[in-house]
Amino acid sequence: MSLQDSVNKILSQWMKGKGPDNDVVMGSRIRLARNIAKIPFPAVAKDDQLSHVADLVRSLPICNGKADMDYLGLANMPRLERELLVEKHLISPQQTKDVKNKAVVLRHDELVSIMVNEEDHLRIQSIYPGFQVQSAWEQCDQVDDMIGDKLEYAFSPELGYLTACPTNVGTGLRASVMLHLPALGMTKQMQRLVPAINKVGLAVRGLYGEGTEVVGNIYQISNQLTLGHSEKEIIQHLATVAKQIIDQEREARRQLMQVGKAELEDRTYRALGVLSQARVISTQEAMQLVSEVWLGVDVGLIKELDSSLPKFLVVLIRPAHVQKLIGRDMDAGERDVFRASLIRAYVNSGLQEKNADRQEEGEG
Amino acid sequence: MSLQDSVNKILSQWMKGKGPDNDVVMGSRIRLARNIAKIPFPAVAKDDQLSHVADLVRSLPICNGKADMDYLGLANMPRLERELLVEKHLISPQQTKDVKNKAVVLRHDELVSIMVNEEDHLRIQSIYPGFQVQSAWEQCDQVDDMIGDKLEYAFSPELGYLTACPTNVGTGLRASVMLHLPALGMTKQMQRLVPAINKVGLAVRGLYGEGTEVVGNIYQISNQLTLGHSEKEIIQHLATVAKQIIDQEREARRQLMQVGKAELEDRTYRALGVLSQARVISTQEAMQLVSEVWLGVDVGLIKELDSSLPKFLVVLIRPAHVQKLIGRDMDAGERDVFRASLIRAYVNSGLQEKNADRQEEGEG
Repeated sequence: MSLQDSVNKILSQWMKGKGPDNDVVMGSRIRLARNIAKIPFPAVAKDDQLSHVADLVRSLPICNGKADMDYLGLANMPRLERELLVEKHLISPQQTKDVKNKAVVLRHDELVSIMVNEEDHLRIQSIYPGFQVQSAWEQCDQVDDMIGDKLEYAFSPELGYLTACPTNVGTGLRASVMLHLPALGMTKQMQRLVPAINKVGLAVRGLYGEGTEVVGNIYQISNQLTLGHSEKEIIQHLATVAKQIIDQEREARRQLMQVGKAELEDRTYRALGVLSQARVISTQEAMQLVSEVWLGVDVGLIKELDSSLPKFLVVLIRPAHVQKLIGRDMDAGERDVFRASLIRAYVNSGLQEKNADRQEEGEG
Repeated sequence: MSLQDSVNKILSQWMKGKGPDNDVVMGSRIRLARNIAKIPFPAVAKDDQLSHVADLVRSLPICNGKADMDYLGLANMPRLERELLVEKHLISPQQTKDVKNKAVVLRHDELVSIMVNEEDHLRIQSIYPGFQVQSAWEQCDQVDDMIGDKLEYAFSPELGYLTACPTNVGTGLRASVMLHLPALGMTKQMQRLVPAINKVGLAVRGLYGEGTEVVGNIYQISNQLTLGHSEKEIIQHLATVAKQIIDQEREARRQLMQVGKAELEDRTYRALGVLSQARVISTQEAMQLVSEVWLGVDVGLIKELDSSLPKFLVVLIRPAHVQKLIGRDMDAGERDVFRASLIRAYVNSGLQEKNADRQEEGEG
């Protein structure tokens, strides 16, 4: 199998596909927290109760050929495969710890995933490329209905859906957008923006959610409140604020192009130069350089690469992906060497392909 | 004219040619300070006396078709051309200041040059690629004899040749080697070596001699004493010490390859990456990166470039060369942009050529 084939196989649909506002928005995510009535939340449930939850889910029609979905127990899944799912945002880092009775239901295109026995019995998630919070919501809502038809959810007429953590009570909804904000980062505007975003009730986190640091200028913006507002209101509010941030990022890019085009060009091409030649590189450094190249491509300075390349490199260079592509477990030092070689292969073949495309266009 | 043709035309023979120990030694230089008897030294001579010196030199057979040499008055030479000669090491920086009655006699292959009315009436110089102090000396000695046959030198039986500065009295000889010592630099051994070299009577300077800083790990080692030793002894002493430094540099490279090969490979390839993509670059930074690439090529880590490329890039990226190749005067900011574009053109065509050579070899 060629590297391209392996990568195509390994990447989720949301990473490969293009979506609206893809110049700033990597993806849009909806997560619904649900619990099954009369069974304690996972943190306090006994083993047989968790096993019962797992059985109930496995018996759902969606897990039996109705919706292109597979039920995958995590206990039998190799560690590397679990970590791969985390890096793809299909399961949470917590879901990989103490995997007994834990599972994930995964649609083949990976646009829908359901975590079983994480903090709640069920966490239904949909993730779409670009700025598509509404579509992701509709998708998630539909799966939620399919499950709700078969299982009785823990629900209170006053509070709404009951969840293990009080912050999720009500709609159980977390809507988030993953934004690539390099120009706001370079112009030091993020320091000012983060408190402003917090003030309107939204959280700002790194690429891998709660407790993860921001690397490669990728931020997740999501709602904090789940109670007291309808799903529609929550999504609308997030979308409105996200739209403003997107506009500010674009404005910052315009300004950088006006007042510092030569510097920006130099910076983004140097990042490309290092990525195309480095022999050892950490995830952290690679993320930062990929982010700079991505910006260069998006503002039209780097014409030799397709914009899809940096977008999926962001995920591809993470530890489990590197190991999966190389085909074995490695320590951090080895990973840094193979990460560099994967990036080189990718960037250089990307450069050649685009070059060939251009020549064909010239001939046509 | 192609870039390659322009560069071939602009480069001196000593930069293009290969010489012994070229992995460490860029070039070897001999300079003889001579004055004409009964005429005051340039610093105190009157205009008509300096003009008389110039006339005497211009009338020499070597300037009249006998030795492939041209007499070039500096007063009528454009500033850029003069600076070019400085960057090629064919005249000194001082020679370009107050150019009245100053001249250079230049052999077509630029292996021999004679400065007229610099600090002394005549400074005869020969510069050879690689470690060839002896050949450079023989060449210089021969030209010295040709001039000495026609002009009476200021000479004292007790002191030897008389010169404007007492440090040159005696043989009037300065012998120097230009060494590329990146591994001794990286391993911080130069700090220890410089005082040791000074102790044995040799000076350590930057690429452009007295008062110039060391950039790109290029050092000039030369004799300090000209009095009390024969030319043969001076040259022999320099050669012996240089040989030791060359051995130490090679040993440092071997050690780097043994204990830090992966890091060294990463570092040299990153330098290549930046050079192949940067859009703005200063002489200083470019020198450092070229030095790292050069090391990578010389130790066999970078196989995609010929070792001659970094060697002549070291001179080619200097301000006057950049302006000469682009064809006009520029300010520093503009030069940094054109320097980057020249380096890119050069490095990328070097990469392609070597690649083509390898494919041919593979096919043959």
